[in-house]
Amino acid sequence: MSLLVVGSVGLDTVYTPFDKVEDALGGSATYISLAASYFTGPIHFVGVVGDDFPKKYITLLEAHNIDLDGLQIIKDGKTFRWAGRYHYDLNVRDTLLTELNVFESFKPIIPPKFQKAQFVCLGNIDPVLQLRVLEQLDSPKFIVCDTMNYWIEGKKDELLEILKKVNVLIINDSEARLLAHEPNLIRAAKMIRQMGPEILIIKKGEHGALLFVEDQIFSAPAYPLEMIFDPTGAGDTFAGGFTGYLHKTQDLSPDNLKCAVIYGSAMASFCVEKFSTKGLEDLDYLRVLDRFREFRKLSRFDEKE
Amino acid sequence: MSLLVVGSVGLDTVYTPFDKVEDALGGSATYISLAASYFTGPIHFVGVVGDDFPKKYITLLEAHNIDLDGLQIIKDGKTFRWAGRYHYDLNVRDTLLTELNVFESFKPIIPPKFQKAQFVCLGNIDPVLQLRVLEQLDSPKFIVCDTMNYWIEGKKDELLEILKKVNVLIINDSEARLLAHEPNLIRAAKMIRQMGPEILIIKKGEHGALLFVEDQIFSAPAYPLEMIFDPTGAGDTFAGGFTGYLHKTQDLSPDNLKCAVIYGSAMASFCVEKFSTKGLEDLDYLRVLDRFREFRKLSRFDEKE
Repeated sequence: MSLLVVGSVGLDTVYTPFDKVEDALGGSATYISLAASYFTGPIHFVGVVGDDFPKKYITLLEAHNIDLDGLQIIKDGKTFRWAGRYHYDLNVRDTLLTELNVFESFKPIIPPKFQKAQFVCLGNIDPVLQLRVLEQLDSPKFIVCDTMNYWIEGKKDELLEILKKVNVLIINDSEARLLAHEPNLIRAAKMIRQMGPEILIIKKGEHGALLFVEDQIFSAPAYPLEMIFDPTGAGDTFAGGFTGYLHKTQDLSPDNLKCAVIYGSAMASFCVEKFSTKGLEDLDYLRVLDRFREFRKLSRFDEKE
Repeated sequence: MSLLVVGSVGLDTVYTPFDKVEDALGGSATYISLAASYFTGPIHFVGVVGDDFPKKYITLLEAHNIDLDGLQIIKDGKTFRWAGRYHYDLNVRDTLLTELNVFESFKPIIPPKFQKAQFVCLGNIDPVLQLRVLEQLDSPKFIVCDTMNYWIEGKKDELLEILKKVNVLIINDSEARLLAHEPNLIRAAKMIRQMGPEILIIKKGEHGALLFVEDQIFSAPAYPLEMIFDPTGAGDTFAGGFTGYLHKTQDLSPDNLKCAVIYGSAMASFCVEKFSTKGLEDLDYLRVLDRFREFRKLSRFDEKE
């Protein structure tokens, strides 16, 4: 059974202190699928674009064994566009433009051959759409869900409804604090898990990530990068690497979830090293494995005998 | 040869959302020494107080095998006092009062029996005083130095001078960025090590700590505390645990430095669980070792075979 990915697809214009890129391939479903494609395939992809969506991006996604039968291409429609500018420290970004276009009336339709999906990764989109995806599935076994402050603030009730149905929630630290109304992350995590997801991942950017599973807490380091070119898509890429690895191994034990968090972090570190999806386009499994092992060196210490 | 600790000694009044404490034992030398005392002793302590300094604190320090021959007690002098208020999220604090008192004219005098010290921990005080300490020592082998934004901004030249003479600098992430004028921590670390200290530790509060040694980077997790009662002294306590463990083991290899960072983090986690120095007063080595091992569980992951 394939991994089902649902989310946004867009054309991003990004300015950083180092360079800029226009109408680059973007969107949560894109980053998730590309990252997951290094672990498993075909990826069952559901999203929407206009017929202005460049053919070269279709080719790129298909080359990564991403099945686009669920990609709606709207005739005479315009693809979702986003533009943003990162500041020198790359932690702050200004949104310059958000044009929803065809995304505004997106109704995810899951093709019949995708409906038996056992593993699902719901990219960061309106929780109403995330719920609509789940309604169309036969009996998903493992649902990973991403969200953001925009939905926490604007669609709290719908978000709480989807949280009851998912196995894993992935959010960042400020979103966790916002969702739980609690500044202490450990307490916030407890409260969020009571909302539904038995597994919670809190991403902390340059400080790594925390995984909460059963009665365990796992602290994953961040990869020490001297140069971050473009942070766009790092969170989606994390989700894709995490879910892709779990789909590949079909092992949901806490120990394997820890490895999945490291694979997610490894993929995100490749993502931010280049503009847009460039860092995810030409990897191979050995490079991913090498980076996984670098994470191990980074955090390993052994007691003196 | 004993571990030499030089720094401030004070009486702290601290308000947190949970409670308050008045004229509690405080100061960088105090926290460093108490933390180090669980690893090694006697601790050779150098600092200054007025004759209003409560006898019970002298007794407490001495009970931890801290040799106070280097503690100047100024007749008719008033001990350094600090008051601060922490906000609900405990990451922000307002300084309500800083009365230097006898600390204003402090000239550290190292008693002859302390001058042969091989291991030295310079607590966060004026870099001019830190330099004066080093001038009085025969041939220190391993010097750990703490500092803060106040000296980075106000005494940069003197700070750069002391940095050339120390082996380890311990600072927090915002101080590292300030000192190097560089938002990326990994690049900032490189630049700071070029200023002198071959070993650098960047503390990141709730996000753990980074150790830079030789060509290695080690990422230490933070202990996941649901309740932080009082963050005062956590950084000094880290430095004390770190240096105390290294003094005990006399092993300065990168692998052992990693363990020292974890012991420093473990001691800091005990510190913030109670008000003032209370969390450091009644520990024993087994509890410290248990916490060290909890840190190991927190960050450990193993590759699937």
